[in-house]
Amino acid sequence: MSELGKGLAGELTASGHLLRQRVYFEDTDFTGIVYHARYLHFLERGRTDFLRLVGIHHAEIDGGLHGEKLAWVVRRMTIDFVSPARIDEILAISTRVEEISGARIVMAQQVHCGERLLIEARVEAAIVNGEGRPRRLPKDWIARFPSAVQTKITHP
Amino acid sequence: MSELGKGLAGELTASGHLLRQRVYFEDTDFTGIVYHARYLHFLERGRTDFLRLVGIHHAEIDGGLHGEKLAWVVRRMTIDFVSPARIDEILAISTRVEEISGARIVMAQQVHCGERLLIEARVEAAIVNGEGRPRRLPKDWIARFPSAVQTKITHP
Amino acid sequence: MSELGKGLAGELTASGHLLRQRVYFEDTDFTGIVYHARYLHFLERGRTDFLRLVGIHHAEIDGGLHGEKLAWVVRRMTIDFVSPARIDEILAISTRVEEISGARIVMAQQVHCGERLLIEARVEAAIVNGEGRPRRLPKDWIARFPSAVQTKITHP
Amino acid sequence: MSELGKGLAGELTASGHLLRQRVYFEDTDFTGIVYHARYLHFLERGRTDFLRLVGIHHAEIDGGLHGEKLAWVVRRMTIDFVSPARIDEILAISTRVEEISGARIVMAQQVHCGERLLIEARVEAAIVNGEGRPRRLPKDWIARFPSAVQTKITHP
Repeated sequence: MSELGKGLAGELTASGHLLRQRVYFEDTDFTGIVYHARYLHFLERGRTDFLRLVGIHHAEIDGGLHGEKLAWVVRRMTIDFVSPARIDEILAISTRVEEISGARIVMAQQVHCGERLLIEARVEAAIVNGEGRPRRLPKDWIARFPSAVQTKITHP
Repeated sequence: MSELGKGLAGELTASGHLLRQRVYFEDTDFTGIVYHARYLHFLERGRTDFLRLVGIHHAEIDGGLHGEKLAWVVRRMTIDFVSPARIDEILAISTRVEEISGARIVMAQQVHCGERLLIEARVEAAIVNGEGRPRRLPKDWIARFPSAVQTKITHP
Repeated sequence: MSELGKGLAGELTASGHLLRQRVYFEDTDFTGIVYHARYLHFLERGRTDFLRLVGIHHAEIDGGLHGEKLAWVVRRMTIDFVSPARIDEILAISTRVEEISGARIVMAQQVHCGERLLIEARVEAAIVNGEGRPRRLPKDWIARFPSAVQTKITHP
Repeated sequence: MSELGKGLAGELTASGHLLRQRVYFEDTDFTGIVYHARYLHFLERGRTDFLRLVGIHHAEIDGGLHGEKLAWVVRRMTIDFVSPARIDEILAISTRVEEISGARIVMAQQVHCGERLLIEARVEAAIVNGEGRPRRLPKDWIARFPSAVQTKITHP
């Protein structure tokens, strides 16, 4: 599977992660450009694959790897729609960790098409259990992030 | 809630159900018309609200009302895309039961925009448990369907 | 069509608009709740139907009603995900105009499920032409908004 | 761009095309598996990238490369949902041409997860102009398909 998945999950960078994705039919709307809500899908794919490459998998945490069913939830999001993308274009989704505390993670994300900046976003996420109650990030996760990320940890 | 939901779930008809839904931005693609996969959403809303009005609720069967977690799955679908819809148009989704047996239900669905036929579909669905294993339709469901539907029951 | 559409477009309120929408299969994800990006669809339906009820239609402005092809674009969005929604629930999407200037409109939106606040959002939108160039809001639009909205107009 | 896009568009095979895609949050529903309508997105990405690799681009045909604005429309689809996919899994979407005539193309598609067959689909598509009127497939397209496909051409 790791062989099959090669290239599908993007790549780790010094300060985070980079993922390339294509704009397909499903992403566009009748005005000819990408529908604004679809960028949240692209951003979420970027965050998911960043976590995947540091060893944190949705299926595993949902399956109870940490003692109970856990899941990520987005708490807050600020998003600037700077420039539009169109069908067939290739988007580069970059993700950096801005802050990790005991119970939440803040990520800064950008979407580019070539040199052109399309999206600038700040996403605050947290971990909750099956009943939606907030949980602290599992301790061993912290050590998995790139060292540039380690310096962002405020309340380990 | 029943007061709030009034009008949201469409209406039962002699042989099935009718639901009206609007085409929004999210449903269209860059060619100016509704993206083909979105009609499956409209059709699924129609089937869901048909079941809702005869007293079968997704949240309840997922919650274990019938002894274990159950869910609908679509097994097979044939769909003719006859004519396209556009932004702002109102779609009428009609659903009839073609056949109910012990373990599956076959529905015939159409989508119209005014007099214009847009979609003709045949959908075969079944009930599975949490592990995906097929289950017989709960017996008391049969009696809930309109009498015109009762005649379609082949293996009760 | 106005007869068919009755109830589909929500209702104008003293300071804006209220729309009720159902949570369907398509809106949820494997964690059991509504996928975060889907709230942007619900919010957009609310804004669209608000504009529809004051007489501003996407199909018309796309069709060149104001001399050239025009379309709304979202420029900036801040969104707090306060509490999650689940399958079958009914959402109430409320929209208020916070500010209208010559070239943009700022709307404050909330999504409730019963008494429970789910989403708090601030959305800044603008009008662009077919090449994506910003255009001033057509003058006659201003007069169409409810009088409580008129007081928000800063640069008419 | 061709460098950036490397690996994003899958690969041509003897009789068609193979594309690998990941299942993300957006693709799943509250029952824990991929929402049935989402497979149509995966299938469409497969067909799109197949066409891309033989030199047929949505943006170009929309832009009037063949004298007028053209677009693909799906006319008919039969789809068997054999087995479900879950979050994080990698899907292999394979596409073969079954038949090409002057005005339509029929493709046979499958989705696998490892050895497991998930989806079996037959898709009939056609080319229309901006007003939705059917158009013959541009003649030079035929020669672009792999030779195994050439034998499927019935009315060149």
